[in-house]
This record gives sequence, C-alpha cells and structure tokens, in this order.
Amino acid sequence: MVRRVTFKPYDITVEVPEGENLLRAALEAGVHINASCGGEGVCGKCRVLLEQGDLVSSQGALLTDEEWNLGYRQACQSQVVSDVVIRIPPESLLDRKTLVRRKAGMALRPSPINIAALKDQGLYNPAFQKKFVELTPASLADNICDLTRLENGLGRRYALDNLATDFFLLRKLGRVMREDNFQVTATLDFAQRLSRKPRIVNLEPGNTAGRHFALAVDIGTTTVWVQLLDLASGEILGQAADYNAQLSYGDDVITRILYTQKPGGLEKLQRSVAATINQVMHRLLKRHKLPVDEVSHITLAANTTMTHLFYGIDPKYIRLTPYTPTVCHTPPVRARDLGLEVPEHVFIYCVSSVSSYVGGDIVAGVLASGLYKESRLTLFIDIGTNGEIVIGNQQWLACAACSAGPAFEGGGIRFGMRATSGAIEEVSINPDTCEPMILTIDMVKPKGICGSGLINLLANLMEAGIILPNGKFRDDLITCAPRIRMSESGKEYVLAHAEDTEIGQDITLSEVDIDNIMRAKGAMFAGYMTLLEGVGLRLQDLEQVILAGAFGSFINVDNAIAIGLLPDLPRDKFQFVGNGSLQGATLLAFSREMLEEERRVADMMTNFELSETPGFMDQYIAALFLPHTQKEYFPSITERLQVRK
Amino acid sequence: MVRRVTFKPYDITVEVPEGENLLRAALEAGVHINASCGGEGVCGKCRVLLEQGDLVSSQGALLTDEEWNLGYRQACQSQVVSDVVIRIPPESLLDRKTLVRRKAGMALRPSPINIAALKDQGLYNPAFQKKFVELTPASLADNICDLTRLENGLGRRYALDNLATDFFLLRKLGRVMREDNFQVTATLDFAQRLSRKPRIVNLEPGNTAGRHFALAVDIGTTTVWVQLLDLASGEILGQAADYNAQLSYGDDVITRILYTQKPGGLEKLQRSVAATINQVMHRLLKRHKLPVDEVSHITLAANTTMTHLFYGIDPKYIRLTPYTPTVCHTPPVRARDLGLEVPEHVFIYCVSSVSSYVGGDIVAGVLASGLYKESRLTLFIDIGTNGEIVIGNQQWLACAACSAGPAFEGGGIRFGMRATSGAIEEVSINPDTCEPMILTIDMVKPKGICGSGLINLLANLMEAGIILPNGKFRDDLITCAPRIRMSESGKEYVLAHAEDTEIGQDITLSEVDIDNIMRAKGAMFAGYMTLLEGVGLRLQDLEQVILAGAFGSFINVDNAIAIGLLPDLPRDKFQFVGNGSLQGATLLAFSREMLEEERRVADMMTNFELSETPGFMDQYIAALFLPHTQKEYFPSITERLQVRK
Repeated sequence: MVRRVTFKPYDITVEVPEGENLLRAALEAGVHINASCGGEGVCGKCRVLLEQGDLVSSQGALLTDEEWNLGYRQACQSQVVSDVVIRIPPESLLDRKTLVRRKAGMALRPSPINIAALKDQGLYNPAFQKKFVELTPASLADNICDLTRLENGLGRRYALDNLATDFFLLRKLGRVMREDNFQVTATLDFAQRLSRKPRIVNLEPGNTAGRHFALAVDIGTTTVWVQLLDLASGEILGQAADYNAQLSYGDDVITRILYTQKPGGLEKLQRSVAATINQVMHRLLKRHKLPVDEVSHITLAANTTMTHLFYGIDPKYIRLTPYTPTVCHTPPVRARDLGLEVPEHVFIYCVSSVSSYVGGDIVAGVLASGLYKESRLTLFIDIGTNGEIVIGNQQWLACAACSAGPAFEGGGIRFGMRATSGAIEEVSINPDTCEPMILTIDMVKPKGICGSGLINLLANLMEAGIILPNGKFRDDLITCAPRIRMSESGKEYVLAHAEDTEIGQDITLSEVDIDNIMRAKGAMFAGYMTLLEGVGLRLQDLEQVILAGAFGSFINVDNAIAIGLLPDLPRDKFQFVGNGSLQGATLLAFSREMLEEERRVADMMTNFELSETPGFMDQYIAALFLPHTQKEYFPSITERLQVRK
Repeated sequence: MVRRVTFKPYDITVEVPEGENLLRAALEAGVHINASCGGEGVCGKCRVLLEQGDLVSSQGALLTDEEWNLGYRQACQSQVVSDVVIRIPPESLLDRKTLVRRKAGMALRPSPINIAALKDQGLYNPAFQKKFVELTPASLADNICDLTRLENGLGRRYALDNLATDFFLLRKLGRVMREDNFQVTATLDFAQRLSRKPRIVNLEPGNTAGRHFALAVDIGTTTVWVQLLDLASGEILGQAADYNAQLSYGDDVITRILYTQKPGGLEKLQRSVAATINQVMHRLLKRHKLPVDEVSHITLAANTTMTHLFYGIDPKYIRLTPYTPTVCHTPPVRARDLGLEVPEHVFIYCVSSVSSYVGGDIVAGVLASGLYKESRLTLFIDIGTNGEIVIGNQQWLACAACSAGPAFEGGGIRFGMRATSGAIEEVSINPDTCEPMILTIDMVKPKGICGSGLINLLANLMEAGIILPNGKFRDDLITCAPRIRMSESGKEYVLAHAEDTEIGQDITLSEVDIDNIMRAKGAMFAGYMTLLEGVGLRLQDLEQVILAGAFGSFINVDNAIAIGLLPDLPRDKFQFVGNGSLQGATLLAFSREMLEEERRVADMMTNFELSETPGFMDQYIAALFLPHTQKEYFPSITERLQVRK
C-alpha cells in the first residue's frame, strides 16, 4: 500500500510503499536530514518531529522520554505505516534552492522479462521441447532397435523427420522405454546449433511433458547468477547468486588473465567458477525441490574473459595487443565436460561475444533490452571496470569498451568498497554546514563507500559548491571544518567520523579519490561521444539510454548526469534493464528465435577499439571536469548550478 | 618366386611360393603323407624321398646319415627352394581314387581393400580432410576472434560456407594459430553425421596437409584389430591385434551380457575393451613412430553386443525375447568419453547394426565385399558362434543369425581350441590305414583342434568312409585300431597319440564331438536355406558365396562343402573377404560416401528371426546328416563319394 510522506517546512510530499524507512523516504524526496551513521541509529543526528500520522519506531538511548513524547523520532529507526507529516528540525534545514535539483525520481526499475509479451510476439517458443509418445511395444514380429522405435514413433506422432540423438541418452534408453511399457516423453532440441536435425536429448518414462526445466546462468567477474526456468509454463521460478569463487585469484579480469599464465592457473580458475555454478545451482534446485535430472539445458552469458575461463580456453591474447579473443561464438558444449554436476545430456548454449572487451554479457543485454529491433537511437551502457557502451538501433550497432578503471567498483578509492552491507550508497550534503546525510546498504554502521555512493557523494559535493568543476575543494570553506580538512593526499571531506563507523576510522573522500572518479566517468563519456562522432551523430540525437548491470540499477541517474557520467537527456529517456546478461541468457532458453538470432545480433555490433580511434584522447581530456569542460553538453546541470548561485 | 613340386608316384604337380614347407605343399596338392606331430619333426613319419632339385632341410635325430645321403627328408622340416620331384614312400601311399576329391585348390585369398579401385570409382574421398591456409595475422585494425579468422580464412580459400568447430579445439586454438604466424592446417570433417556443417576438428601450425592419419577398429568377441590408415596417401600403413580383454569375463556374447547384469559388470566390460583398444593402438602407433595427436578420427565395426558393451549401453535386451538391441545406428561419440587415450577431437564413427545378432561387423563385411551394389545373387556367410548370413544383391538384402553354437570356435568339442599355436588345422587321412597327416599352426606339437581343423577332419573321416552319413563310426573298421577305439562317449578317432602331443594325452574326436559339429553346420545350412525359401529362391540360384571372418579365410571350402556347411557350388564362385568388419571400418575412413551410405545399406538388410520363421526347424533337422539328407543339394560330393566306392 502506498503512503504519503510530507516533509515540513518544504511541503514536499513523496509516495512510498508502506513500511518504507523514513530516512530513505526523505532521500527519495530530496529532503536533507543530517545522518552520519548510515542508518544504524547510533549517531542520533537524524531526529525529526512527527506531526501527523503514525510511524513504527524504536526509541533507543538517544532520545529522552520527554523528546519521545513530544514526537521526536530518529528517521533511520522509523518506518512509515500511515500517511504522515514530518517536520525537519532547524539544524538539518536546507536552503530551498538546494531542492531544485530533485526533479525526476529514481522510480525507474528493472522490469523482469515479459513472457506474455514474448508470447504475443510469437517469440515464446523454447528450442527445447518435450513430446510425449505412446510407442508400440517391441515384439518378435517387430523387434527393431529401441532408438529406431523411438525415432519412428516421434516422427509419426509429431511429423518429425530425421531425428538425431544425444549419445549418452543411449545408456538409459532401453530401461526408460520399458519402465512404463513404451510410453515415454522425449526432450527435443530444435536449435540446430549442435546438429542439423532435431536432437533427442533426454527421455523419461510416462508423460512428463508438463514438467520441463532449464537453467540460465550469468557469470559475472564478481557474481554468478543462476535462474531456474520452467519451460512448460514460461515462468522464471527463482534465482540465486553467489560471488564468483575466482575472486580469490583477483578482482578484475586482467589479474585473472595474468593468473592463468601460472602453471595450473587456468585449470584452477576454470574449476572455481564451475564450483560456484554448481553450488548456486544445487541451492536453487533444492529450494524448488527439483532433481537436477529434470534440467534439459543451460543457457549462459558472460563477458569474454569469463567465457574463456569457464570454457578452459587460454585468455592470454585478450590482454595482449591486438586484443583478440580466441572465440566469440562458442559451439555448444556438454556441461559435464566443464565440470558441472548435471546429467550428461545437458549442453551449454552461450551468448556470443563481440570482442575481447565487449562480451556475451553485453550482447545478452542488447537482446534483453530489445534495442536491436527498435528504431530509436539508443545508448546502452554498462558501467564497471570495463564500462561497455553500445549505440545504435535496428539498423546498425556500434560498441566499445572504455577502460574506466575500477573506481565505480570501489577500486582505487581509499574508502571505496563493493556494494555490500555497510557500504554508503545514499548521500545528501547540507551546503551550509557541510553535514552529510548518509544511508548504508542494510542500514548498518558504514564501512566504506560503494560506486553509486561515490557518484552521489561527488554530485552532492559539487552541487553544494564544496568542490569546484576541476574536482578540487574550494579554498575558502573554513566554516566546514572539521568536515573538510587537509590530509597527506591533499584536501579531503570527512563523510563519517571514526566513532560512527564500523571500521573505527574516519571515512573520507580526498582529491586523489575524486581524480580517480573523474577519470572513470571521463572515460565512459569520451567513449560514447567518440562512437557518436564516429557515426556522425551528436549527444542530442540520442533518444534513449539503457542502463545495464547491477550497478546500473542502483545508480542515481540525476547525480550521474551531474558529474558528467551519463548524458544530460530528459530523465524519462532513461531505462534500467537490470542484469541484462542474465535476462539475455533466459531469453535464449525461452525463445528458439533468440537462440538462433543472438549470433546475428553479435555480428551486427561493430566493435571500436577506442585507443585506436581518432579523437578519443581529446574527448577524454575534455571530460576530466565536472560535469564537462563544454557546459553546453550538460544544459540542465548548468542551469541548475546557475539557479543555485 | 614360384616353384613347382611334383609328387611321385601320382605325378601331381603343384606350384608353391619359394620357401614353402614341403608338408604344406603336399596338403595343397592333396597328397597324403603320414604326419602325427603337427609338423614339429618329432614323429618322423613324414619322410619322403627327394629325387630332383633342392630342399633346405634339417636332418635331425630321426634320419640316419645313410638315409639322409639316399635323399630321405622329413617333409615337415623341408622348405622348397627349387623345382623338385618328391617320391612318397609306400607306407604313406594313397589309393589313387582318394585323390579325386582334390580338384579346386584353396588358392583363394582375402584381398586387401583396393584403394586404386576406390579411386577409379570416385569413392576415394575421405570425409576427413586437411586444408592448409595462410591467414592474415591479427592486428589492431583487424582483431576479430581467432576462430572467426580461421573460419573466414578457410571459407575464402576453399569456398566453404558455414563451418562448425569442435569445442575442444578452442582450448589450443590461440596458441596453434600463432605458432607459425597464422599459417595453419585444419582437419575438417565433411561427414555431417555430427553437424550439418563441415566441422573443424583439429588445427596444426604450418602446412601438415601431407600427414593425415586415422584408425579403423574391429572389435570382435575374441579379437580386437586396429588398422592405421594414411588418409593423405590412401594407404593402410599397418595393423595390430590382440585378444579382447573381455575374454576374462566369458568367451561368448551371452556370457558377457549376463556378466553386465552384475553390479559394476557393464563398466568392467566397457573398460576392458577400451583398454585392449588402447594397448593395440599405442603399439601400432609406436611401431609407425606416430604420435596419437595426429589421429583425426576412428572408424569402428563390431557386432551388436560388442558395440553396446564398448559404448557402455546395457545389452540386456539383446538376450531377452524379443531380442531388441538398444541402438543399431549409434551417433558419433567422443572417443575420450569411452576411455580411449586419444586427443579430445577424436570421434568414433561406428558402422550400423541390423539387429541384435546381425551387427555392424556383418554390415561392414557387406560394404567391404561390395555385394550390396552387385547384380549377382550372393550368399555372404560369417561362420562363428552366431553364424551370420546375408543373401541378396543390389536390389534387396535378407539376413539372419544362426545360433550355430561354438563348435567352430572349438567350443563343446573335447579337444577343440581356438586357432592358435599348436592347433591342428590341416588334416589328411589315409583311408586304408586310417593314419593321419596333420599340420598345426606354427608347426609345433599339437595341443588340440581348431575350427577349420575340425571341418577338415570331419570331411576326411567321411570321405575315407570311416564315419557314416549319420556321423557315426563304421562298425567294421577293426583294421584301424588303435586309431579308432571305444571311449566313454562312444567311438572316437585318435588324431594324435599322447607322445606326439604337447598336452601329453591323446587328441581325439568322438561321436559326441561329431554330433556337435553337425548341429553347427546344420544350423548354418538351414539358415541360408530358410532365407532362400523365404524369398522363393533355390540353392542353385546362388551366383556367388562370400566367406567373411578370420575363420572364413582359413576354411577349406571343399571340405566345408563336403560336410554340408557350405552350398555345393562351383568352387570358383567362392570368395574370401577376410576380416570384412575391419575392412568395412577402413572403408568408412577412406570414403565419405561409405560413411554416409553405410546406414542405408544396414537399413536395406531385412532381418529374419529364424526361430520365428516357418520351415527353419524342418530345414535344421534335415541338415543333421553328412552332407545332407537330400543328396541332390550336394551333387559334386555325392558324385565323388560314388566314384570312391
């Protein structure tokens, strides 16, 4: 149920789901409340006054009984259970001007794959299908071999010619055919990627056509996702994830490629990701009480390096100039041959890659977003160490990887961290006092700052006028001490004091950190600018921006535009596709057309090596500014900053 | 060089290769010389007189210097090195009448596959071919993935579209392509049994198109043969064999099928035959100094049970009524998955079976003999425990398995043994004295009698009038004691006395043994008579008889006709195909047409279950006679026996 929260004295009202945390509601509304402890309730700074309605709240030690009775509550400890009116106390009050920047909400959410739409478009047509058939039992007068009996029976019943059969099925064929007196259900692979004929993959006694399952897998450098698909009903039954066990051998693809060059290194990485998939898969199947024998196939998407590692292919040449992957279109492979604990009949169908740094995860995202069949000029962007960008529409697609560096994953930032529990993700800064309002993942004491937190922090520092467009702190902010101070690495902003953190030290952002973030965002911006220029188009020609990846789902678009990471387009042109890689893999299982079309889409994507592309370096240098050296690229931000002055 | 040997007093001349053993030359000529020790030279009975020419001979202890100087030699210890005239001493002399039966020689020999003929017919066209290509090295301006570079390069150079690639090749692709600066030789599989596209199977640096090898394998119940094929030149480089290690688990297919029903039994049998193939293959490759990596694929022929066991498929239903094999047309399978120690790219292509007891070995023989494309009505016969017969021509083929029993493999015969060293294979009997002339394999002291020896012995006993057409010994042969005597199992003939044998006991043939041989030959004869009757044809309509199998190569056709095993046709209508199973497998490697046609040929072969076929039992009963109850079926034998009387 939706509840309305009105913040006084601004009279800003926001709608939130019942049960929403009040501090989060304030952030959503763009209302600043001081809050230093990330939402754990220990700093006591986020006190507000409940004027109307009800909050479920705990008093804790930081509010006296008297204050409690007057209606004071800690915002971070309060949940909205009715329409409420909340007054922000004077110490947290913001100048009204600051509120200008809050216009478009972050309400865009990744939408799961729409099976109904697929069905409407005639695209719901899994390449793997189950067919029940009642065969004539063998007799002395008719004792052809079991396999021919099965092929003939299926052929007659379903008008299928020329069936092929997976070798390993033969090992149980005789038994299965006799278990229910020659009534059997065959799983058929119509994909023709492995064979020119429909291929009999599995056989079960009796009629099991109503039960048919597949797995979609996304191998991320950091996280492995597995989705359990019901091909009989077209439902996604559930999903599970875990960290890629390869993380023990290095955080990023380059470190892992280097590790493969040690003796036994490739085998170790291959086995660790297979172990992760096994573990996640078994957990997921157990949760749904499904034996692994009922899985007919696996679809997979991953970046190029992850694909090479999982397939046991030496990824050396991905890292060395001229950056050639060994394979972009992998043939189907028996999952057992890669160490997956599934029946022998299970093959893996992998989404094609485009190049060493534009992988199957991006192609899967392009498939899932459907941009390859739209007429609108679209920018598809996946922000990460190798931020990947795709520009185009149904007629052409250009793509590139930007070596953005690991800043958005917390790398190279002193207090950067991955988006896990305790990471500061939401930030608001009072420009008058420099006091922050922060919210951590899981609302516990902060441990560091994650990528989306860094974007939000940088945008706030910039919009509050605390840092200048060149990324340096203003010299005249004496009033903001002790939040702004000198350190060994230049000036820094103290986001949380040691006593409010989990790590027992101040969490800060220095000019060095800011420099790293600017390089990362500059590389991304320069990337898509270069692609646009390469095809003779301008920023304004973009009609749509699709944000892919887990990171994309958590990003505050307005802040990302403010720092010059995303283009300054009307906010309703932005869409999140969520984990496009996993969704693309799922689509391959749900639609034979997708399974057969994915290679065409990958082949359609023209890869640009940015380092080799004229103009990229100029674009990059020009982008090392907040939001950009050329203000006209960011009209709405420029206007807002103007208003604020 | 051919030498002429003339035997006095008969004036029979035979041509033999220089170096031929004189006793063997006598057998070839149909000249009887007493010889009891199998050719080892210890009985001294085979002495002859050299009248003209030269023999290389050793004197030994059994000839005095005086005898030696007179020109006496032991036939079994003598080799023909010039044209010679030999006089048989009176004690070995045969009545001239006895010589009537020697008319057609056994000079027919299995001919190896004729590559030149294949080439003439446009059939020499291996499905696997090597293609050299110089690829453009990768550069930043052209950094497509290695696989696409390879596929494009091959496609342009050889006008090939739409190549597929074996997954495991990818694991070495990057390295191999760079080893000789992007000059590579690809092994392509054009067979389309695994993929609808030509499939890249292997890749080597540089130009290796002149080196291309494959293996053909024949898994017999008893023996495993491996042939090494040079696909670049079309030569059979060599072959090697060993006993099937499954022999430890039982001599015949039924015993082995029963063994698979024990826990772990199937796995044990699978592993033991794989171990045999590995051992024979490695030995063969070592002999030819070839690394196993240069093998591109394996072709295989075997009977239905052997195929099931090697492929790890439960053979239970082969033995149980209604005798359905699980699979007759096996899909190609990765050799590694069956435990063969070959590179991952090696797949096994197996010849199709027809039914549980007419297997791929027979289909391979039909392919090798070419009978499926001839117009002549042909009887193809493979004598063994499950004697298989095929009748037909290019328009139709009928086949059946006769449960002949193991007699021809020495089973169920007191002194029966396999055709190994010391087995009596050649026999001649002096009808007057009942004295035998025997020759063993390797010419060592006899240990027992092999299948072809049994046929020769039985025919000799019959033609010498020692046994009657009903298989019983004549009652009035007192003169032949001690060669004929009573035993616990009725009368028996003593072929070798204990002192002349390796086993230290008399080697005999009893009436019980004879009965077993008659059942075996009766089942075979009844089998092809039933098939002929089934299609409305008669014995006389047969235009050709092809004898397959190792046994078939060693059989004395005339003796086999005499006992009623083979039909009484002019002797020049008989052909040996040798190991048709191995030859058929080899053909599959040499000819894409054969690889693709073999299934059509197997499907063309209509299987008859003799036990279910009306008339078979009557035919069987009628055939339990020497040569047959209906004399008109065996006119030449009847005539000869008539003459002799």
